[in-house]
Amino acid sequence: MLIYANPRHAGHSGRQEMYRGRLVPCHEVPARLEHVLAELARRPLGEIREAPPVARALLEAVHAPRYLRFLETAWQQWVALDPANAALDALPSVWPVRGFRADLEPANFAARLGLYSFDAGTPLTEGTWAAAEAGAACAAAAAFSLAGSGAPRAAVALTRPPGHHAGADFFGGYCFVNNAAVAAQALREQGARRVAVLDVDYHHGNGTQSLFYERADVLTLSIHGDPRTEYPFYLGHADETGAGAGLGFNLNLPLPAGTDFAHWRAALATALARIAAFAPDALVVALGVDTYEGDPISRFRLASGDYLQLGADIAGAGLPTVFTLEGGYAVAAMGTNVVNVLEGFEAAAR
Amino acid sequence: MLIYANPRHAGHSGRQEMYRGRLVPCHEVPARLEHVLAELARRPLGEIREAPPVARALLEAVHAPRYLRFLETAWQQWVALDPANAALDALPSVWPVRGFRADLEPANFAARLGLYSFDAGTPLTEGTWAAAEAGAACAAAAAFSLAGSGAPRAAVALTRPPGHHAGADFFGGYCFVNNAAVAAQALREQGARRVAVLDVDYHHGNGTQSLFYERADVLTLSIHGDPRTEYPFYLGHADETGAGAGLGFNLNLPLPAGTDFAHWRAALATALARIAAFAPDALVVALGVDTYEGDPISRFRLASGDYLQLGADIAGAGLPTVFTLEGGYAVAAMGTNVVNVLEGFEAAAR
Ligand SMILES: [Zn+2]
Ligand SMILES: [Zn+2]
Repeated sequence: MLIYANPRHAGHSGRQEMYRGRLVPCHEVPARLEHVLAELARRPLGEIREAPPVARALLEAVHAPRYLRFLETAWQQWVALDPANAALDALPSVWPVRGFRADLEPANFAARLGLYSFDAGTPLTEGTWAAAEAGAACAAAAAFSLAGSGAPRAAVALTRPPGHHAGADFFGGYCFVNNAAVAAQALREQGARRVAVLDVDYHHGNGTQSLFYERADVLTLSIHGDPRTEYPFYLGHADETGAGAGLGFNLNLPLPAGTDFAHWRAALATALARIAAFAPDALVVALGVDTYEGDPISRFRLASGDYLQLGADIAGAGLPTVFTLEGGYAVAAMGTNVVNVLEGFEAAAR
Repeated sequence: MLIYANPRHAGHSGRQEMYRGRLVPCHEVPARLEHVLAELARRPLGEIREAPPVARALLEAVHAPRYLRFLETAWQQWVALDPANAALDALPSVWPVRGFRADLEPANFAARLGLYSFDAGTPLTEGTWAAAEAGAACAAAAAFSLAGSGAPRAAVALTRPPGHHAGADFFGGYCFVNNAAVAAQALREQGARRVAVLDVDYHHGNGTQSLFYERADVLTLSIHGDPRTEYPFYLGHADETGAGAGLGFNLNLPLPAGTDFAHWRAALATALARIAAFAPDALVVALGVDTYEGDPISRFRLASGDYLQLGADIAGAGLPTVFTLEGGYAVAAMGTNVVNVLEGFEAAAR
């Protein structure tokens, strides 16, 4: 497989996130990706490349232009408010609830920050935009690498910040640019008639779902902790099946806290059967490993060894596949768990 | 005039609010109301009474029952999460942005807190519900006191937390229960055919506007800092004129930073002319004095003496009038400014 690693990921390094009324250290840290790269050095699975820049038009096919413009310049605006802000992360403190307007972009920075976000756990830092844009470039390059004769069976966007919680015009859940959506859109633009996006992160892929909710050309599926009790709370229920032309093209498989691999794998089989019925030309896997039993903020019980089988099961779909790296907060186990998925995939895909 | 003072206001005393990525001390403090009571002791304007309990049905005519149930028990739920939370205020850290669902109430407390809020500047504390409910009781009692022969011309709900930012099912802007809306609804229920609510706080009365936006029986008007740059940012523009049956029954008069009393008073004249054309049976004034030149978070330039004229101008409408206390954060000047409004009203109403 081909691997595109984000050279700018470490520039996004949040200091604090809001949790239960106070500021606490961030879970989404650069060491997460470093552990994956270190494990790949021990167990090589393919060439590691740097991605070319991503086309703005591709980003704008996924995200609202005004949102991208905001992200691009947000740090400069934040520091312009007060030079002392350079020592802080930008976190939203006001947002538009039901009945408020989103059609007008306020002049006030805090108001724009809140307009474009859905949590105060996703610090925007000096290097955030560069990291997010370079991550989207990895996702796009991974997708484009699957075209043509001699193309690999799979390509991986090894990046952070993750992407699957980001919607057309909002960040949250540690995500700014939706890498899985960028990959799916890139696959469509290079000729895939239908693309499936399978989200195996512990948390519902709300951003990806919402981006394709009214489209029949991209099937979105997510296996995740029940949003009644698990982040992102306000989306991810089983009755969300798409709308308009996209009706029937979203499948949510929420599972209770404590789910082990046997039960998780049964949900995966359901998702893979739906994918097979859809008969896509390509597959995007939003790969979070916060389903791991040791994850500090999640409540499934997958063991490290289970990820080999998970990868093999996904390879069984027999599709050109892009992996994007999403969550996983048991930092020291990240390398083993992610590389197990990829190795399991490769072994089964051979 | 009759004055209903909230005996439980001091139980709502927030420790910190989020501002620009960090937690800072609260502006909305018990001393605000103590200064008004102290000034009223020096310049008595009428009997100060305690209000009887407010009917739940009246609160539910303004706010969603599930929102009220949440507020009532929120502190107990917060502390049940972790006994150490008793030393902290509850502040939201995740919320439903565009496309998220609000129809289902999550089981998770943080998710419910975010579902029902629009900022992280409004700490929910141990005494919040009791203070908010007792404040609504003051507003209701003030409204009910205006009925019958021998009724006073005006009644005042001297309370905090303020109310005008709170909507049907959300808190924010230091507000939990919309006291002005409770007063307007109480006036309607006791026989007023039409009621006008005039908001003179520095900040747009977004909650009040949204509560009556589709109703023709309650005219809402607000004179405030331009929401492009001023809180609450996402509502309060001049083009918001009501919807459905309420079309034409909302008037916003946003004014630029730096507005002095001469210009502010011209906007008041516009509002009073609209009220006269509406010919209501009663008037509710959402009385914030954060239009004061010394206010630490606002940018108009009204002087303390101007509030006498402001009160006199409002008396000129010739209507039975309920005042609810809203913002004002120049704490030491609160007493003078609020009592000046009331004294100006009384002098002109005689
Ligand atoms: Zn996750
Ligand atoms: Zn105010």
